[in-house]
Amino acid sequence: MTLRTPDDSFHVFDTTLRDGAQREGINLTVADKLTIARHLDEYGVGFIEGGWPGANPRDTEFFARAPQEIDFGNAQLVAFGSTRRAGVPAQIDPQVTGLLDSGAPVVTLVAKAHDRHVELALRTTLEENLSMIADTVGHLREKGRRVFVDCEHFFDGYQANPDYAKQVVRTAHQAGADVVVLCDTNGGMIPARIQAVVRTVAADTGARLGIHAQDDTGCAVANTLAAVDGGATHVQCTANGYGERVGNANLFPVVAALELKYGQRVLPEGALAETTRVSHAIAEVVNLTPSTHQPYVGTSAFAHKGGLHASAIKVDPDLYQHIAPELVGNTMRMLVSDMAGRASVELKGRELGYDLGGDRELVGRVVERVKEQELKGYTYEAADASFELLLRDEVHGGAAGTAPRFFRAESWRTIVEQRPDGEQVNEATVKLWAKGERIVVTGEGNGPVDALDRALRAGLERIHPQLARLNLVDYKVRILEGTHGTSSTTRVLLSMSDGSAEWTTVGVGDNVIAASWHALDDGYTYGLLRAGVEARD
Amino acid sequence: MTLRTPDDSFHVFDTTLRDGAQREGINLTVADKLTIARHLDEYGVGFIEGGWPGANPRDTEFFARAPQEIDFGNAQLVAFGSTRRAGVPAQIDPQVTGLLDSGAPVVTLVAKAHDRHVELALRTTLEENLSMIADTVGHLREKGRRVFVDCEHFFDGYQANPDYAKQVVRTAHQAGADVVVLCDTNGGMIPARIQAVVRTVAADTGARLGIHAQDDTGCAVANTLAAVDGGATHVQCTANGYGERVGNANLFPVVAALELKYGQRVLPEGALAETTRVSHAIAEVVNLTPSTHQPYVGTSAFAHKGGLHASAIKVDPDLYQHIAPELVGNTMRMLVSDMAGRASVELKGRELGYDLGGDRELVGRVVERVKEQELKGYTYEAADASFELLLRDEVHGGAAGTAPRFFRAESWRTIVEQRPDGEQVNEATVKLWAKGERIVVTGEGNGPVDALDRALRAGLERIHPQLARLNLVDYKVRILEGTHGTSSTTRVLLSMSDGSAEWTTVGVGDNVIAASWHALDDGYTYGLLRAGVEARD
Repeated sequence: MTLRTPDDSFHVFDTTLRDGAQREGINLTVADKLTIARHLDEYGVGFIEGGWPGANPRDTEFFARAPQEIDFGNAQLVAFGSTRRAGVPAQIDPQVTGLLDSGAPVVTLVAKAHDRHVELALRTTLEENLSMIADTVGHLREKGRRVFVDCEHFFDGYQANPDYAKQVVRTAHQAGADVVVLCDTNGGMIPARIQAVVRTVAADTGARLGIHAQDDTGCAVANTLAAVDGGATHVQCTANGYGERVGNANLFPVVAALELKYGQRVLPEGALAETTRVSHAIAEVVNLTPSTHQPYVGTSAFAHKGGLHASAIKVDPDLYQHIAPELVGNTMRMLVSDMAGRASVELKGRELGYDLGGDRELVGRVVERVKEQELKGYTYEAADASFELLLRDEVHGGAAGTAPRFFRAESWRTIVEQRPDGEQVNEATVKLWAKGERIVVTGEGNGPVDALDRALRAGLERIHPQLARLNLVDYKVRILEGTHGTSSTTRVLLSMSDGSAEWTTVGVGDNVIAASWHALDDGYTYGLLRAGVEARD
Repeated sequence: MTLRTPDDSFHVFDTTLRDGAQREGINLTVADKLTIARHLDEYGVGFIEGGWPGANPRDTEFFARAPQEIDFGNAQLVAFGSTRRAGVPAQIDPQVTGLLDSGAPVVTLVAKAHDRHVELALRTTLEENLSMIADTVGHLREKGRRVFVDCEHFFDGYQANPDYAKQVVRTAHQAGADVVVLCDTNGGMIPARIQAVVRTVAADTGARLGIHAQDDTGCAVANTLAAVDGGATHVQCTANGYGERVGNANLFPVVAALELKYGQRVLPEGALAETTRVSHAIAEVVNLTPSTHQPYVGTSAFAHKGGLHASAIKVDPDLYQHIAPELVGNTMRMLVSDMAGRASVELKGRELGYDLGGDRELVGRVVERVKEQELKGYTYEAADASFELLLRDEVHGGAAGTAPRFFRAESWRTIVEQRPDGEQVNEATVKLWAKGERIVVTGEGNGPVDALDRALRAGLERIHPQLARLNLVDYKVRILEGTHGTSSTTRVLLSMSDGSAEWTTVGVGDNVIAASWHALDDGYTYGLLRAGVEARD
């Protein structure tokens, strides 16, 4: 399969910064938008729709700063806006002037294509709507801008009044729009219908067509591909499918399908392997946990759990994977779970450098311990370091804490106090034994877990100065039974780094502090193990 | 559009309990499986695949108990298993006997349809694989079972060796299988190809076909619909799309599309309106947070945020929704967010019973307060009660705490102690003023937040006995900056109930305890407001 190099004949158009930002829970600052634009440009999309300049100060600022602060290598910046108001010449409509003032070389104009929307939402005549499109496109073209027209509610409009919907496409096309984008704004379409409509409209109007699909039927990716099957050569997507209501067509599976299933190169060479990294980086900027089950890029996308699969994968991984995960920058994982049984534990052990193949009794003990711990609320699927400590215990003869540890806690206490003067104090005291020495140390922090972490670290650093390099890099809390209020079981996943590697541990307890203590204990133990410190508590 | 009543001519086949349970993070007990089976039967699916009896004790127990403990109204129970082993007669293969022993009236047999899998994973000849299928189907039919055959890796196999793949279908069909299910086991397919292959195989073999799609390209729902377009009359799905790797075709959007987009009734009358409830109930049983962005049933699926949309929705909600949310048991929501601006705040106010339409200055102040609070990490999209308290403050003249409150905290303190003897103590002391009285009270609990809740409630109950009815029903913790370790901002969402209504409040702080305090404060304040208590601190 030879891939063509991307050129203007096919557009990957990203609207994360405009339509994606409509997702419930997303709230982007200008700095966030600049960071995301950098990621998208590096990834290699052709167009980045940055927002609606003039409509809000944040977007205006973004368009002023982006060309200064970003050295675009692949993408062109696109301003989104609306056709002129009814009865007002495009030349003096301040909203249209705002689009020109933004300096963006490309403008996407949203236009009404559904007769009922023209009458009810826009409150003008069908004829005036066509003039608004023609005038605004013409004016922007005269000023040297490239223009794409988004036909809002196109598919619903086509169902209600196909002649008018096509007239909107023709008008935009004849006025000089380079691409006319058919939008499934309410997201109610299914692929078969999308393909049929795109094919007919392309034949009847002669316009270059694009697709903008919302995901309300769970078919946005397929609808986008169906439009390409029907002749569309411009796809509008958002990173991770962020967008209003359910979301938009997800950029990553659309691009991956076009490159890996259609054999059409739509990104610069080598970019596809950055997919997982870019997806996670953007999730981090918008402050949403990356979906673990997102196609291609989720941490579960190439994770194998079933015992049946695990044994077959020992033969050949390709038997149970539709692509090699490396193509999209992801990796295969074996999950440790009581469903998987012995084959998974063996594979996981091998991944961690322990060859358990010869010792059936040991593998059986590990499977049993994992089952017991899972019943308590532990999960080792994400917590490799805690699983390795468990494995190490069993290799040293079994039962929790059998393998030598570096320290042992005698007791600990945290106090959080809100004082009458408004000051808040967080304090933790830890009493522990390390190398035969009893250490009592108190730490303060931003909260009880932070204070506990500082106290434990301060105490251990006296004995093990190597700890100075360790850093807490991520911390997640999960309440395990959502319907029992605050008295549920709490699970904490905690990630530490020593600068060169990162590891995750798990702790479970009646409350967040007890659970965090267990995860901290495992985290520092694993860190000392990695540093090659000799164990003795 | 008239819907046909469901009968055997179209099968909705659910495999949540078997394939769905392969999802990373899911671990079902027998009790969980029974509860889910009850939900699915009430929802009206035709077939419930319960697991692999004989392969593990949990599934064997499920098949023993389900017919005793569930009064199935719509569904038939299906046992999943494999064709006989190579070289062993079906009559004496213990795995096949286990399927019969389960007592299930229907059996789904998994069969290899990909020549390479037969040779590498099954390690037998292509001919013996066909005999294994024919013998096992024949034996189960003789024993009075209805048989479906799942052709594993069918589409990949068809690509590699279409003749052999079709021979597998013909063999199963001729041996007496009622439905031959084409499986996209690795999930790598896209709809156009699925439809073409299903159509050809149906024409070439004469078998009744089904579809089983995994979601690795993000197209499982569309692939399922494409197979129906191609002639399949049996769809295998899982609730919420749970399943190995990315997951399976999601039952809910598949059923909703068939009923609402294809006009084909596939559930009993009235069942579709239970979709949202059933989806969330099953998520609760498997202990996964329901996806807020799931098509049709997510809390965001009919949530409107954009200012443009919010103003249009004031005209007619149907302009921006592909279906009426009530059809699937969901509801429209207006989100309060700084992007939405005045129109949303007005609509939300109206939803809560405050008519703000006439007071532009007041709406402006509310929008400003929401923006300020969102910068600190607050979010009101899910926390209606906290938003109403904010609104109430502004209606009373502005600024936090302007509206009369029921109590005021002077100070509080929590202690969590792990003692040397292993005992853990969680204690909270609260000093507060209510009705001019100073109250000092201490509570113990399972954790610091539980202790704080008990102390606050004990103190307030002395003055306001109405509080006895209030219950904490949900508690969620979110760390806002994932890369700053435990010193990040923490947001808590807390839901309380008084038996007749439920409300959610939000609190933000440097740590989980401070954040919880704010959410508890709002929660009890709102509860007292609802109880009609006169405010005075």
